Amino acid sequence: MQKPLILIANDDSIAAKGIKTLAEVMSEIGEVVVIAPDTHQSGMGHAITLDRPLRVSKVKDFLPNVEAYKCSGTPADCVKFGKHFVLKGRKIDLVVSGINHGSNSSIAVIYSGTMSAAIEAAIEGIPAVGFSLCDFGAEADFSHTKEYVKNISLKVLENGLPQGVALNVNFPKLSEEPIKGVKICRQTDALFRESFEERKDPYGRAYYWMDGFLQNEDNGGGTDEDALKENYVAIVPVKFDLTDYQAVEKMKSWF
Amino acid sequence: MQKPLILIANDDSIAAKGIKTLAEVMSEIGEVVVIAPDTHQSGMGHAITLDRPLRVSKVKDFLPNVEAYKCSGTPADCVKFGKHFVLKGRKIDLVVSGINHGSNSSIAVIYSGTMSAAIEAAIEGIPAVGFSLCDFGAEADFSHTKEYVKNISLKVLENGLPQGVALNVNFPKLSEEPIKGVKICRQTDALFRESFEERKDPYGRAYYWMDGFLQNEDNGGGTDEDALKENYVAIVPVKFDLTDYQAVEKMKSWF
Repeated sequence: MQKPLILIANDDSIAAKGIKTLAEVMSEIGEVVVIAPDTHQSGMGHAITLDRPLRVSKVKDFLPNVEAYKCSGTPADCVKFGKHFVLKGRKIDLVVSGINHGSNSSIAVIYSGTMSAAIEAAIEGIPAVGFSLCDFGAEADFSHTKEYVKNISLKVLENGLPQGVALNVNFPKLSEEPIKGVKICRQTDALFRESFEERKDPYGRAYYWMDGFLQNEDNGGGTDEDALKENYVAIVPVKFDLTDYQAVEKMKSWF
Repeated sequence: MQKPLILIANDDSIAAKGIKTLAEVMSEIGEVVVIAPDTHQSGMGHAITLDRPLRVSKVKDFLPNVEAYKCSGTPADCVKFGKHFVLKGRKIDLVVSGINHGSNSSIAVIYSGTMSAAIEAAIEGIPAVGFSLCDFGAEADFSHTKEYVKNISLKVLENGLPQGVALNVNFPKLSEEPIKGVKICRQTDALFRESFEERKDPYGRAYYWMDGFLQNEDNGGGTDEDALKENYVAIVPVKFDLTDYQAVEKMKSWF
């Protein structure tokens, strides 16, 4: 049997530890091509680059037997460019994104560059998974995620995914307690409460740093935040058809 | 009765014709505050700015009786900053975004900065609408949209919106045929087919321009593309809970 062709992207850049870990695991499964932003792109949402051209160049010595490229664009650009230019129309069997340094659970999925790469692939009809670890550190320990990354990827290759769906997979931070297993979840209904810290530059002009925390008042059960808290791997199947079909019916009487 | 407080954002920048049109219409309804990017932010998706601070400054002479600001961040940043800093926690009755120069129907909703501003407001529990015109021109004619922008906004102020929903409103380009009315639609299941044009810079190095067109093979009826083609205003209620609940049930047998 031919090895599956796997495209890898992320949002933490080609230099991140998480994408190297992901490429190592994927090399055990298939033929791997990596294309990732040349700089950090966290919080980029589903941005694409329209107002300037892209630069793309080959990266030497990324990993043995792994073709790797860095791109001046966003995570979604990387998938588009990887599919259309680097792989020149070859059939991609799986797109994986990450492993992100930091959680993309709950509402973070909306702001996530990691997930935009996976969703971009899903739009193209390619089975796709975004992996994230609840640890923002540049030197975060990904060792406990490897077995699950491999297992989940193999299952997706074997079963495919429902049409219009990508997986948002979040791992608990490494702790002394072993991971309990995997839970299929719904997106937690929580939101970021922002604050803005005002500072003055050397010329006396104001600038503002955005900060915030996740305010979670969702007690309905079955959420990705619940699963992570109990030390499970949380998987949310996410879709890119944003239509609220119930609201379509309700609103028909409006006009 | 107190006038409703309306926050306006967009992705085409504070200098765009579309946001001025929107602010003019909203001034007839309520107290208006505008906060928009200082540069063009099309295709920014739901990006937020995490790696650098924001600059915000007041804009003089935007429109009489309209407080206006420009911000160095993304459309989603504008809503966050507007809510938390400019309005200092005052209750906002409505957030409107646009009017975008260019369509945000179908899958474009995913890449849309216009809609990210509306969705950001919906996450905060504020009724929100993104307006877009199917005309990319900087001097696009918005005259036929005004009556509908006002009417839709008044209906949202009157009825509210279902929880977790924002409206994605797209207008046909001005033509000799009058608008036929409003249709509540589902998001068209179509995708952009990209191409990349390779050019060489003066130093002989390659760079790539991304281009593309919407490939629509959705013949199921009831879509926003269908409505626009028939010269209706297309409204899609969109939600930010991306969970595919059917897939959650299906996938529970996986692990």
